[in-house]
Amino acid sequence: MLIDWPLFALFVTTAFAAGSTGAFFSPGRWYANLDKPGWTPPNWLFPLAWFVLYLSMAYAATRVAISGHPEVIYALAIWGLQIVFNTLWSPVFFGLHRLLPALVVLFGMWASVLAMAVAFWRIDLVAGLLVAPYVVWTSYAFALNFSIWRRNPDAAQMAGS
Amino acid sequence: MLIDWPLFALFVTTAFAAGSTGAFFSPGRWYANLDKPGWTPPNWLFPLAWFVLYLSMAYAATRVAISGHPEVIYALAIWGLQIVFNTLWSPVFFGLHRLLPALVVLFGMWASVLAMAVAFWRIDLVAGLLVAPYVVWTSYAFALNFSIWRRNPDAAQMAGS
Repeated sequence: MLIDWPLFALFVTTAFAAGSTGAFFSPGRWYANLDKPGWTPPNWLFPLAWFVLYLSMAYAATRVAISGHPEVIYALAIWGLQIVFNTLWSPVFFGLHRLLPALVVLFGMWASVLAMAVAFWRIDLVAGLLVAPYVVWTSYAFALNFSIWRRNPDAAQMAGS
Repeated sequence: MLIDWPLFALFVTTAFAAGSTGAFFSPGRWYANLDKPGWTPPNWLFPLAWFVLYLSMAYAATRVAISGHPEVIYALAIWGLQIVFNTLWSPVFFGLHRLLPALVVLFGMWASVLAMAVAFWRIDLVAGLLVAPYVVWTSYAFALNFSIWRRNPDAAQMAGS
């Protein structure tokens, strides 16, 4: 399958522009001081995982976009929705320290990522498989955000940035 | 022209999810204390303008998406890029108080909004006209962010949230 490089570049730029929130709003002292469950991933894993996930989703979106399938417009509309929620989560969690609104954003992200995976899979099997880890990671992130919210009722008042 | 309501609902949800950063990160005491040029719009104008701009861009995107034009996939990819920059700006400006990085984000937004307007206009004249005010508003916002950055070298250290 040929790849449309300008289109891939657009999707990659979009994905990493979304990912820049993770650099703007990164885990600091506030996050370190939160009560977190034992299954919390180490901090170094997050940028690594996101690097792979962003590249995969951009390549998957490219495959879907050039497929010529009649449902492409819906798949790309859902791509836009999930990447907005993706951009939004870090500022609300790490910037505002508001765990419940962050959980709501993450629910929107989880639902739209799942819908995107289904839409991609219906159009192109490889694209569906490429975003499957993103569904798993977002589900895991949702469970983690939920657990941290339950364990830290006073998170918004805690010190650190 | 018939409208595809589920598709329009997706674009509207995306636009207003992006716009929720304006509610999460709203102008407070820090912004009030900044040295701003005389042509700064009053605070009440921003949510009103964005409400109209978000609805217009969502409807324009819907018209473009259902057009059947071969360049639709590029137009929708650029839609995704501009809406990510749109989501990102408020957290960087109002959340981090970092005027120069916010200006960089706004430049990315301005360039992608302009590219989207051109792509939309090539596909559907009405869609192009519908996003023209968005180009004007983003150009104006860029000039305002630039002026505020020049006038407030110590913005990041100023008090208020």
